[in-house]
Amino acid sequence: MAENRQVLIASLPTGALASSDFEMRSAPMPEAADGEVLCRTVALTIGAGQRAGLQGSASYAGAPEAGRLMGGSGVAEVVESRADSIPTGSLVSAPTGWQAFSTHAARHVHLLDAGTDPATALGVLGTNGLTAYFGLLEVGRPQPGNTVVVSAAAGSVGHIVGQIAKIHGCRVVGIAGADDKCRMLVDELGFDDAVSYKDPEFRSKFKDATPDRIDVYFDNTGGPVLESALFRMAQGGRIACCGVVSQYDTSTPGPGPRGVPGLLVNNRVRMEGFLVFDFADRYEQARRDMSQWVADGSLKPKVTEFHGLEEAPQAFVELLAGRTVGTTVVTI
Amino acid sequence: MAENRQVLIASLPTGALASSDFEMRSAPMPEAADGEVLCRTVALTIGAGQRAGLQGSASYAGAPEAGRLMGGSGVAEVVESRADSIPTGSLVSAPTGWQAFSTHAARHVHLLDAGTDPATALGVLGTNGLTAYFGLLEVGRPQPGNTVVVSAAAGSVGHIVGQIAKIHGCRVVGIAGADDKCRMLVDELGFDDAVSYKDPEFRSKFKDATPDRIDVYFDNTGGPVLESALFRMAQGGRIACCGVVSQYDTSTPGPGPRGVPGLLVNNRVRMEGFLVFDFADRYEQARRDMSQWVADGSLKPKVTEFHGLEEAPQAFVELLAGRTVGTTVVTI
Repeated sequence: MAENRQVLIASLPTGALASSDFEMRSAPMPEAADGEVLCRTVALTIGAGQRAGLQGSASYAGAPEAGRLMGGSGVAEVVESRADSIPTGSLVSAPTGWQAFSTHAARHVHLLDAGTDPATALGVLGTNGLTAYFGLLEVGRPQPGNTVVVSAAAGSVGHIVGQIAKIHGCRVVGIAGADDKCRMLVDELGFDDAVSYKDPEFRSKFKDATPDRIDVYFDNTGGPVLESALFRMAQGGRIACCGVVSQYDTSTPGPGPRGVPGLLVNNRVRMEGFLVFDFADRYEQARRDMSQWVADGSLKPKVTEFHGLEEAPQAFVELLAGRTVGTTVVTI
Repeated sequence: MAENRQVLIASLPTGALASSDFEMRSAPMPEAADGEVLCRTVALTIGAGQRAGLQGSASYAGAPEAGRLMGGSGVAEVVESRADSIPTGSLVSAPTGWQAFSTHAARHVHLLDAGTDPATALGVLGTNGLTAYFGLLEVGRPQPGNTVVVSAAAGSVGHIVGQIAKIHGCRVVGIAGADDKCRMLVDELGFDDAVSYKDPEFRSKFKDATPDRIDVYFDNTGGPVLESALFRMAQGGRIACCGVVSQYDTSTPGPGPRGVPGLLVNNRVRMEGFLVFDFADRYEQARRDMSQWVADGSLKPKVTEFHGLEEAPQAFVELLAGRTVGTTVVTI
């Protein structure tokens, strides 16, 4: 009988992640119990937030351990169903983890329309897209004409945030870590401006890009980029805190941003953290909106694809090093 | 003719404030023009936020200069009125500055009821009380049963915040800088608990005092105390950022608090700065509520009084050193 292939956490990283922090192994094929489905993974998505999940108790995702299967979300084909609600042959999204086969209770998988593009399901219609949608619209609350700034703007969440802000009539400025990413944001995705935080003249360029200051800052990074944005906030500005990618891939998180809380007081700024799961009862509306925007061309999802389960660790390393764009997907 | 006495800023402090940063001088008696009133200062209030006003552009209060009159709010008697709306002999609150006599356009003074206690007008019914009221109720939004924590809890704003939170059915914990202040908060003002941040066991005592974590944290301090509170916030908690007293009396503000933005994300915490002036159209309602609470004994304003204009600099030094309680008032 076929064996299952899995990627395990070989060791908890103490500094920058390396692909050697993972190892492949063969495992017995899992078997579906009554009420469960056996799934063959078609594609996985990897997000920077998963790096936080390797820092033990530091994250909302729970404590990880060396020797355990690496967790993650995927799109899968149901190869055997023992649940009435999910036919064999269905396409589903599921918390597959990094493995070729997995079993799940029927209530833990989400049926997808036949023919759904896995990258779309994992990206713009998955957690990344939903995070962008609710974080921007419900926490940031942009108004037409507002200046919206997003960090990690070429990333899985950021590139969607900027485009939704454009759809809502805002002036949109992206912050990314490379000039080619900045060009892509402006030339391909319609951002009004984009600045690389690695540019030696970042401060002055960022100031020039935000002449009316910042009404909404969508923060994926924390750290020095957050600090720079704090000093550019407009009165009554909102900061949606989504993630802390600047602090994930290190064992020594830096100090907090200067200006907290002084600048929040002076400019009456609201800074609010959120997790997308809190909006779960409204996912369907968000998916309808975003499907419509994708269909009419106003929202262009970007994907960086890797091929083969054994490439997943390297894909994760590339993602954290800032060498991917949009949603990072591993097809299997 | 009588001369005016004034306290000038002699030099902008570069570290901890000293009374030698001020100087007394005599000045010509001011004269009221048409539409103005000539006021004799009865009492001044001093707030920690005024220290920020001596740091140049760092504050919302505008840039100060050596050689200028020290600004501030006072209660005054109108000794000559050339404005129909303000009778001679009225008691008013006004931005008198630190001087014995001042002139103001009628629209810049606020008529007080005859017989109003100046300390009450400057404290619980003045900017301090209004700041506590709107910051707690509108930014913090406490619910009955919530745990509310306030820093600089024995200070002009903090001691009112805690009592309003008690009136709203919350469990209230104060953070102050001395054991006798903590005892006063619990024994006299009805706080449920109070902890000194100077206690070597502050961390464990603070944890014990907040067994259900913190729903609302009213921050007057910033710095390490804010950082400690961030690590104790409950899911969905709110932080009302009112001031940064830990950073005022120094020329080298520290780094921002660790945990920003990571802890805001993990616990979905909202952190929001405010200035009381944004609520000006609702001051009267707040004053009615607080007058009622003072009358029925549920809100007990505390005042530390100094006597004589020449004592104002030392009163300011004492305030910043944490040696005053409640509203600091200088009677003249």
